[in-house]
Amino acid sequence: QVFGRIQTVTLIPGDGIGPEISTAVMKIFEAAKAPIQWEERNVTAIKGPGGRWMIPPEAKESMNKNKIGLKGPLKTPIAAGHPSMNLLLRKTFDLYANVRPCVSIEGYKTPYTDVDLVTIRENTEGEYSGIEHLIVDGVVQSIKLITEDASRRIAEYAFEYARNNQRTSVTAVHKANIMRMSDGLFLRKCREVAENFKDVKFTEMYLDTVCLNMVQDPSHFDVLVMPNLYGDILSDLCAGLIGGLGVTPSGNIGANGVAIFESVHGTAPDIAGKDLANPTALLLSAVMMLRHMGLHGHAKKIETACFDTIRDEKVLTKDLGGNAKCSEFTADICRRVQDMD
Amino acid sequence: QVFGRIQTVTLIPGDGIGPEISTAVMKIFEAAKAPIQWEERNVTAIKGPGGRWMIPPEAKESMNKNKIGLKGPLKTPIAAGHPSMNLLLRKTFDLYANVRPCVSIEGYKTPYTDVDLVTIRENTEGEYSGIEHLIVDGVVQSIKLITEDASRRIAEYAFEYARNNQRTSVTAVHKANIMRMSDGLFLRKCREVAENFKDVKFTEMYLDTVCLNMVQDPSHFDVLVMPNLYGDILSDLCAGLIGGLGVTPSGNIGANGVAIFESVHGTAPDIAGKDLANPTALLLSAVMMLRHMGLHGHAKKIETACFDTIRDEKVLTKDLGGNAKCSEFTADICRRVQDMD
Ligand SMILES: CC(C)[C@H](C(=O)O)[C@@H](O)C(=O)O
Ligand SMILES: CC(C)[C@H](C(=O)O)[C@@H](O)C(=O)O
Repeated sequence: QVFGRIQTVTLIPGDGIGPEISTAVMKIFEAAKAPIQWEERNVTAIKGPGGRWMIPPEAKESMNKNKIGLKGPLKTPIAAGHPSMNLLLRKTFDLYANVRPCVSIEGYKTPYTDVDLVTIRENTEGEYSGIEHLIVDGVVQSIKLITEDASRRIAEYAFEYARNNQRTSVTAVHKANIMRMSDGLFLRKCREVAENFKDVKFTEMYLDTVCLNMVQDPSHFDVLVMPNLYGDILSDLCAGLIGGLGVTPSGNIGANGVAIFESVHGTAPDIAGKDLANPTALLLSAVMMLRHMGLHGHAKKIETACFDTIRDEKVLTKDLGGNAKCSEFTADICRRVQDMD
Repeated sequence: QVFGRIQTVTLIPGDGIGPEISTAVMKIFEAAKAPIQWEERNVTAIKGPGGRWMIPPEAKESMNKNKIGLKGPLKTPIAAGHPSMNLLLRKTFDLYANVRPCVSIEGYKTPYTDVDLVTIRENTEGEYSGIEHLIVDGVVQSIKLITEDASRRIAEYAFEYARNNQRTSVTAVHKANIMRMSDGLFLRKCREVAENFKDVKFTEMYLDTVCLNMVQDPSHFDVLVMPNLYGDILSDLCAGLIGGLGVTPSGNIGANGVAIFESVHGTAPDIAGKDLANPTALLLSAVMMLRHMGLHGHAKKIETACFDTIRDEKVLTKDLGGNAKCSEFTADICRRVQDMD
């Protein structure tokens, strides 16, 4: 932890409830005296030269300069050919790893009490290649693309993550019994990388078996690494185990040191601007961000305050079972953060 | 229900605990006076002309004649190039629909109490096409194949199933936001077929959203229809919700009236031959089979007896939390069946 040095983070407030929950996070960071200053940018895609959709240059430059971003929910405009903003961001910054820690939250009841796992999703290829063909009338093929480089890169990230975060095992999730060549390649790279991390236990499991065991007893899982689509599925499934997207943080790790942390819930237009939104997912993503930046002390402080507020059950937003406003929930966390000093 | 007429069913006892649990089912059927006679066959693949692996002709002929089969767990021999027995059976009999009703079992505790849904999985194509290529060194593609015919066929099966089984809704599960052409085609066929079933409600959902909602509240789901891989995942996930593969029935519906009902758990070699296995999954699959054959009275009787034995909690096999032998559990169900007369 470097004291005194203030780092700049690109803030993408996003749409709908995005601005309110971003404000909440900024307030809590201020209360915690986190050495962060924000540079606000809008990422909604624009049409660039040649008619291609792209992130506005000011947003791109800000990210490339600051390296670290925090983003609220984005709505994808319904314009012909407009890409999913999520996909466009992944592509623009080569965000190859989506990381989602799922930890049971005391005080927020779900059928499970001891979830403590992390899904690490390959975020650039696989079923998301975007390559599809009409072979003959009525016959379509989609291509799942698996490369050695991307598989090695994500496997390395997963093992590094496990080592740096006091995790003890990495499980590769696959269907190499069916997709022998593609998932086979992914799995082989995981095995190879595992050889270089003898301190981390390595196991392999079929995706269907993981899903079955996950809903029966998630407590056995630790770090899970997998190709794109399986990660899409498992990360949402695991979010469900601890209470949904409203309380689940997410981080996207990119090449060249870029990383964007984000809430993965929607823009909730129905409650936008009404001071009713729950900022927890964005706040916990911001906590992940602090850890990623090495600011462990500030991360711990804010995380503890947030979990304390939820465990206390007195000041909760509606979706968490209370009737507090977003600003009241935020103030309660700020108070706790300040009390820790 | 046709009284008096005895129908022949091909019985594939399978490996490991297969023979014991098959014996259990036969005993219970006898106690219930189910008008079924069994024709036992072995399906373990042999090398046919040209060196191709195939189902032994006696098994194939039996199935083609009787149309209906009941099968225990199969072990896939570890011989070079030996195909998965499951895949080979699906192919041989064009078993295009895998149907898995998942219903919470009273007395068998899981985190969920009111699951009552059915997954219907397209079983012949999609990610299971088996077509894969090495494009260049380090780059592999697997092809997901979606056809109009197979999509329409599975959609029609799902809606027919819903209508014939007093179900009110069918949900198509997809990722057409990512695989626009392939999942798009699947979805379009579902929509078209839905037009012909105005009495059944039709909805569409993303696979990731289904997984998230499923673990939060499975009670909202009814009939779900989906491409092959998604079905592989969701059917196991849902089995997990009600207690695992040991209590989940499965049926495979094929072209030309062929259908094979099966337990989907493993062969459990560690307890094979020790009279310790739980025959519930195979028994409930046999109950599905009776319903498929129109023998609703016998189906209801056996199902009720089985659920009563479990709810009673006095005579349970080890995996169900008791210490009864397979034969004792079976005898308890037989007694109840006979008491109903
Ligand atoms: C919005 C969609 C493109 C996306 C995906 O399928 O990856 C979403 O589900 C996610 O997980 O970020
Ligand atoms: C054994 C394997 C080939 C199979 C599959 O992936 O379909 C299994 O998981 C199933 O669901 O029947």
